[in-house]
Amino acid sequence: MKLLVINGPNLNLLGGREPNIYGSETYSDLISGLKAYAQKMGAELDAFQSNHEGQLIDCLHNAIGVYDGIIMNPGAYTHYSYALRDAVLAAGLPVIEVHISNVHKREAFRHVSVTAPACIGQITGLGTQGYYLAVDYFIRTLKKP
Amino acid sequence: MKLLVINGPNLNLLGGREPNIYGSETYSDLISGLKAYAQKMGAELDAFQSNHEGQLIDCLHNAIGVYDGIIMNPGAYTHYSYALRDAVLAAGLPVIEVHISNVHKREAFRHVSVTAPACIGQITGLGTQGYYLAVDYFIRTLKKP
Amino acid sequence: MKLLVINGPNLNLLGGREPNIYGSETYSDLISGLKAYAQKMGAELDAFQSNHEGQLIDCLHNAIGVYDGIIMNPGAYTHYSYALRDAVLAAGLPVIEVHISNVHKREAFRHVSVTAPACIGQITGLGTQGYYLAVDYFIRTLKKP
Amino acid sequence: MKLLVINGPNLNLLGGREPNIYGSETYSDLISGLKAYAQKMGAELDAFQSNHEGQLIDCLHNAIGVYDGIIMNPGAYTHYSYALRDAVLAAGLPVIEVHISNVHKREAFRHVSVTAPACIGQITGLGTQGYYLAVDYFIRTLKKP
Amino acid sequence: MKLLVINGPNLNLLGGREPNIYGSETYSDLISGLKAYAQKMGAELDAFQSNHEGQLIDCLHNAIGVYDGIIMNPGAYTHYSYALRDAVLAAGLPVIEVHISNVHKREAFRHVSVTAPACIGQITGLGTQGYYLAVDYFIRTLKKP
Amino acid sequence: MKLLVINGPNLNLLGGREPNIYGSETYSDLISGLKAYAQKMGAELDAFQSNHEGQLIDCLHNAIGVYDGIIMNPGAYTHYSYALRDAVLAAGLPVIEVHISNVHKREAFRHVSVTAPACIGQITGLGTQGYYLAVDYFIRTLKKP
Amino acid sequence: MKLLVINGPNLNLLGGREPNIYGSETYSDLISGLKAYAQKMGAELDAFQSNHEGQLIDCLHNAIGVYDGIIMNPGAYTHYSYALRDAVLAAGLPVIEVHISNVHKREAFRHVSVTAPACIGQITGLGTQGYYLAVDYFIRTLKKP
Amino acid sequence: MKLLVINGPNLNLLGGREPNIYGSETYSDLISGLKAYAQKMGAELDAFQSNHEGQLIDCLHNAIGVYDGIIMNPGAYTHYSYALRDAVLAAGLPVIEVHISNVHKREAFRHVSVTAPACIGQITGLGTQGYYLAVDYFIRTLKKP
Amino acid sequence: MKLLVINGPNLNLLGGREPNIYGSETYSDLISGLKAYAQKMGAELDAFQSNHEGQLIDCLHNAIGVYDGIIMNPGAYTHYSYALRDAVLAAGLPVIEVHISNVHKREAFRHVSVTAPACIGQITGLGTQGYYLAVDYFIRTLKKP
Amino acid sequence: MKLLVINGPNLNLLGGREPNIYGSETYSDLISGLKAYAQKMGAELDAFQSNHEGQLIDCLHNAIGVYDGIIMNPGAYTHYSYALRDAVLAAGLPVIEVHISNVHKREAFRHVSVTAPACIGQITGLGTQGYYLAVDYFIRTLKKP
Amino acid sequence: MKLLVINGPNLNLLGGREPNIYGSETYSDLISGLKAYAQKMGAELDAFQSNHEGQLIDCLHNAIGVYDGIIMNPGAYTHYSYALRDAVLAAGLPVIEVHISNVHKREAFRHVSVTAPACIGQITGLGTQGYYLAVDYFIRTLKKP
Amino acid sequence: MKLLVINGPNLNLLGGREPNIYGSETYSDLISGLKAYAQKMGAELDAFQSNHEGQLIDCLHNAIGVYDGIIMNPGAYTHYSYALRDAVLAAGLPVIEVHISNVHKREAFRHVSVTAPACIGQITGLGTQGYYLAVDYFIRTLKKP
Repeated sequence: MKLLVINGPNLNLLGGREPNIYGSETYSDLISGLKAYAQKMGAELDAFQSNHEGQLIDCLHNAIGVYDGIIMNPGAYTHYSYALRDAVLAAGLPVIEVHISNVHKREAFRHVSVTAPACIGQITGLGTQGYYLAVDYFIRTLKKP
Repeated sequence: MKLLVINGPNLNLLGGREPNIYGSETYSDLISGLKAYAQKMGAELDAFQSNHEGQLIDCLHNAIGVYDGIIMNPGAYTHYSYALRDAVLAAGLPVIEVHISNVHKREAFRHVSVTAPACIGQITGLGTQGYYLAVDYFIRTLKKP
Repeated sequence: MKLLVINGPNLNLLGGREPNIYGSETYSDLISGLKAYAQKMGAELDAFQSNHEGQLIDCLHNAIGVYDGIIMNPGAYTHYSYALRDAVLAAGLPVIEVHISNVHKREAFRHVSVTAPACIGQITGLGTQGYYLAVDYFIRTLKKP
Repeated sequence: MKLLVINGPNLNLLGGREPNIYGSETYSDLISGLKAYAQKMGAELDAFQSNHEGQLIDCLHNAIGVYDGIIMNPGAYTHYSYALRDAVLAAGLPVIEVHISNVHKREAFRHVSVTAPACIGQITGLGTQGYYLAVDYFIRTLKKP
Repeated sequence: MKLLVINGPNLNLLGGREPNIYGSETYSDLISGLKAYAQKMGAELDAFQSNHEGQLIDCLHNAIGVYDGIIMNPGAYTHYSYALRDAVLAAGLPVIEVHISNVHKREAFRHVSVTAPACIGQITGLGTQGYYLAVDYFIRTLKKP
Repeated sequence: MKLLVINGPNLNLLGGREPNIYGSETYSDLISGLKAYAQKMGAELDAFQSNHEGQLIDCLHNAIGVYDGIIMNPGAYTHYSYALRDAVLAAGLPVIEVHISNVHKREAFRHVSVTAPACIGQITGLGTQGYYLAVDYFIRTLKKP
Repeated sequence: MKLLVINGPNLNLLGGREPNIYGSETYSDLISGLKAYAQKMGAELDAFQSNHEGQLIDCLHNAIGVYDGIIMNPGAYTHYSYALRDAVLAAGLPVIEVHISNVHKREAFRHVSVTAPACIGQITGLGTQGYYLAVDYFIRTLKKP
Repeated sequence: MKLLVINGPNLNLLGGREPNIYGSETYSDLISGLKAYAQKMGAELDAFQSNHEGQLIDCLHNAIGVYDGIIMNPGAYTHYSYALRDAVLAAGLPVIEVHISNVHKREAFRHVSVTAPACIGQITGLGTQGYYLAVDYFIRTLKKP
Repeated sequence: MKLLVINGPNLNLLGGREPNIYGSETYSDLISGLKAYAQKMGAELDAFQSNHEGQLIDCLHNAIGVYDGIIMNPGAYTHYSYALRDAVLAAGLPVIEVHISNVHKREAFRHVSVTAPACIGQITGLGTQGYYLAVDYFIRTLKKP
Repeated sequence: MKLLVINGPNLNLLGGREPNIYGSETYSDLISGLKAYAQKMGAELDAFQSNHEGQLIDCLHNAIGVYDGIIMNPGAYTHYSYALRDAVLAAGLPVIEVHISNVHKREAFRHVSVTAPACIGQITGLGTQGYYLAVDYFIRTLKKP
Repeated sequence: MKLLVINGPNLNLLGGREPNIYGSETYSDLISGLKAYAQKMGAELDAFQSNHEGQLIDCLHNAIGVYDGIIMNPGAYTHYSYALRDAVLAAGLPVIEVHISNVHKREAFRHVSVTAPACIGQITGLGTQGYYLAVDYFIRTLKKP
Repeated sequence: MKLLVINGPNLNLLGGREPNIYGSETYSDLISGLKAYAQKMGAELDAFQSNHEGQLIDCLHNAIGVYDGIIMNPGAYTHYSYALRDAVLAAGLPVIEVHISNVHKREAFRHVSVTAPACIGQITGLGTQGYYLAVDYFIRTLKKP
């Protein structure tokens, strides 16, 4: 099974940016942790991060036929990128949306996700554990090739 | 570690009610599965279900000092029960909100959760796996007594 | 044919409560009248009233497999009880929503019914005749067992 | 007792138009059925249909002093014709608004009736039975001349 | 100088319809009074009334090149007839909108006029005197041919 | 008969301020014209202008028992001064609201009058003629002492 | 004179729950304090608390003919329980709504009270003194039996 | 192939009405141009114009079984005539909505089309060329009888 | 202890203005009653009334360092005077907002208080008793100098 | 004459992505078809596609002085890219907005175009024919160099 | 060059009022600092402060023909004083709106300025430096007399 | 001291694009002017412009630890780029938002800035002087390294 983790804008600064909201684990800590975990669970996991909406869309297009499941944290694009939403639908792959912080506790604009309706589900507020739980979900529910 | 699973209105009919939305696993299947899983992971898990808003609030009050973490699917009360939200805050326990279906794909009123801001996080759309992932989260992050 | 009449909050006070809006016929007058009428029409009619949202939901659940049609006046729950709406959908029985007063002539919050989309139809403003007409509807359209 | 049935825009196509929503009974079937039923119940029933808002208003004006009760399905004018609403008030006759389909299950614009506050009540979603039940209501509650 | 008075839906019932709101002067009283007054002031005044939105539009079109000023009470069309608004603009004649009752004291939908932005001004709440004052305005400000 | 003309903020600059909207007649031209006209019609007319909301309220209070009718152009206070609205109600005198420009053609905030529901009527868009027509109205409808 | 104090959801936890908002006086402290105070003032005071909307409604029904005045803190039901509002109207007793915290300083949903329009008045933000002031009000204004 | 061009309110004044918005080509120029063009392309084209909402609906009803495609400019009815929308759906014919001006550049109310969801598509802002392009569309995509 | 009672616009007319809403006690009755009551309770009470928003703000500024508590009925300024709200915050004194009528029963604009979030609490609907209860609150909770 | 076709996000997947909405013609089919058609009509046509908002803006800037007309399908950027809207205005070229599907039949967010007010017109719902009709429009209305 | 600084409600308390938001520089510090700075830059600067909306309007009127530029901090009147907005337009002088705090970081009502559209520009959040920068702007761009 | 000027979409066209709104100074004029001015004031100033949201975010990230202050004109991204807002917060540097035109005088969507709450302040409507004033602000308030 091949999984892809896509992180959107500002998540490259994880660990440094507003640690009271996002914790102190860095982006590279997160990715190496996820890769090791996936390997242990018998899956392969790749990661991509970009601050560019267009690159995130390109990435979703390129995932077609390559990955079995996608774990995506679209960052602030969650709240307005209808283009990303269409890309998820166009890709036709199962996508789980993950947010590190509990978006429902924060500013009103973060309560709305325009991408979630195109995903199979969403995990919010559970810190970086959200990514690990999404891996678990795919391990348990997707057929391995 | 002691966990409590609280299910709100109409979830007693799980498996029979609108299976295209909620799947065919019954409520008792779900609870026995969760209990077995928690035991395997070294935790104790109790379950409560009620269609009565007041009983759900009473249940949260009674959980104070007894449970280490709560997994709650408030059903439709999610969308208007400010009393339940206050009960979560009053209980002062970590609560994960779970929804079986992807609420963001359904009617507009289901896009708003008035209880989620009082919880630590939310898992939606991952079927009954959402409950299992919430158990995993508590196992991994809570200190056992 | 078995019919069930469900009345929600404050309808137990019918006849005493705000007679300029709801008329002077009491709740027990209404129920005995409906029972006699149903019997005359060859049907059996039971009645349930509660001020508790949870009991109304329980009642709908218990009606599954017992009744052929339901006549429900959810009282003020009409305007916010998404849990009751889900219960109607979960029960999978034909339900007619009845309101004694013309809700469209009253406060703005009464113009919205969150339960009506789950029902087959709605009768409003025709006084307690609304219940009788709903009985007529079931008599004429439901096949007797 | 003299009753008048007024049908608004597109109801002349009943039976042909979108049968999954409106059923397959034609407009002339409906009217002849209603006339026969009214006669059996000891009343006289006339019918009028127009796609023209102005003709519906004229018709309500002409009904003053002639009819004892009016059964009106304003079609889509229900949702914006304040002129029709004023005509109902100006006519001063008891009017029951009827909709064949359950408007509350359909597009959001159909959830609002601007004419209903001027009527005595409303029957929706019970198919063409709604017209028959409105006849029943008048038979039972209006004094014959 | 030639003036035209256009009255919209339900104003033909003036004097009979809801006299607590609209007064007891009848439509024909109003028109003969206005004609006499205009004549006294040295102007010619014609009148048109219709419940049909289309006929009101036709009437405005036909007024081009014939009348110097128009006094229009669009009745309830005031609140939604963008077609009438466009007709006023298309006619290119000075139009004064008149309402007998004080629309600002009544239901919220009557607070909005979609036709007023196309008119030169509006007189509301001054009873049928509003029509007379509009005549005065034209007498004082329009050059006679 | 004694009439009072009250003008609100910025109307002292009439004739100088934005003449394309308000015309070139000055405030003192307007007042002397109105006084002469009232005298000719057999009435007495006083005038008051202030940019201070509180002074306009005081002025309305002081008018009780002194004036038979009031012509008020509240300027921009029209759109938010609920205190002025209450003062009109408290004064208990007939007040006609006048606006020189057609407020319905201008910015959206000018389409709402919070004072008009407390007045007997409103004249807008007819330039300074609006004041003269309001005098006419009082002359024709109020009984002289 | 007999007074009844009704407290809604989560108020049983008073003193323990979020003391920065609600203070440290417990529910039983409050009730015993109020009973003693009422007795000193020559009145009898009973108390009822429930987390169940339905029980609060039942309680209001049972108060008819027994109590002279009601002091009610509906907790979070304040913001959505139209059923409770109808119960207050149905009971026909004078009810004062009390909130311990200043609801206007908190989340937007707490700024709206759907029950207050059915009460005679409301006291908010004055801590548990609000209940005592409500007792004072009834002592001073209600006639003793 | 038979095509029908339906024009709504005020389009009869084309060429005269607000030429800065709608251009200087008259209505009869437009229709004769379209007829000639259709004939050249091997199709037959009829035209209908009315300011009456009801006549536009009647016209759509009468087109059933007669025309292969309809080109409709509903004028201002576009923005509120749900009755016309229902007529398009009832007719069951392919309809292209055409607007001469770019409605998106104009007043906010013109940005919403209640009829477009019932049509197959919409052409706006391309002047009277919009009608010609709609003819082209039908020529290229509809099978000739 | 020194208390200040501030009354806003139109409250000078108390007793005369709309007695069905505000009662028949006059403003001077109210103030002399409050002064006597405060003196009896061992406090000193001054009063200020103005229809001028600016004078109310000045008054709050001048109260700094002079008064221990303020009882303020801002009249209609309650609903829009953000300047008054800022003045309360700037003064830094405990302020109780009082309304004589139950604002929640009246027009929608009266349901919103922009000043209440700056006050410690609010008493509405208890007539002029509201002022007396506010005095009681300060007597019981403020330390005397 | 030189024309440029700009396609926005996800349109590169045309033919593969959601064929029930967008049809089965691929992006390269579309472009080669359009080039051939333009050539036949005596014009030159270039094409550009990108999922990157910034590249679409750059492309519009680069088109200044090179192309005579632009046909643009901004994909989902239509609904929120005010930057693209400004780019169209800045470019100062005639742009026709094209949508393959009828956006008015789909989700509410697709009913709003923030780019259309900057374009000369819009064609929606006519499939890929929309692009061809836009070419026709430019051929017929633009002067060739 | 003559400049005028106008400060609105509560700015007289600068330095004392909520120093965490507005800083600790007093109002007189600010004004003497600005006067000295202007003099150094070769301009004359006067200052006016009032808590009275009407006096601010009067002040703007009196500035006509006297000052070359105005720097105005309308305090909370910014958010609702359409009368002040009209006064700025009526004065016809260049006005720069200044706010000490970043209004966009604070309560939602402070995000809207009704006066800014009448000004040439706005400086917010730069503390009292905002006033100095506004002086700089006028020095650099206005021609000295 | 090192300052960075960031300009967003379409600002590269400054001087050419809509000169009535943005003036005739070109982008390179602006940047060379700002560099010279900063140098004169003893600071170093770099500039970056991009039409790509992602590149603006990258640029803010890269500024961490390099620049002391940032002057940013996000162009149209101001109104919807929550990703840019998050980038400003993540960068943790003082940012002043500048707009050349007075956004409050233009379309409604330009009245809202989603980036301003993350900045220290905002200067709008003062033309390209806004950038110079922002430089002044940093010169006066930031400590040089």
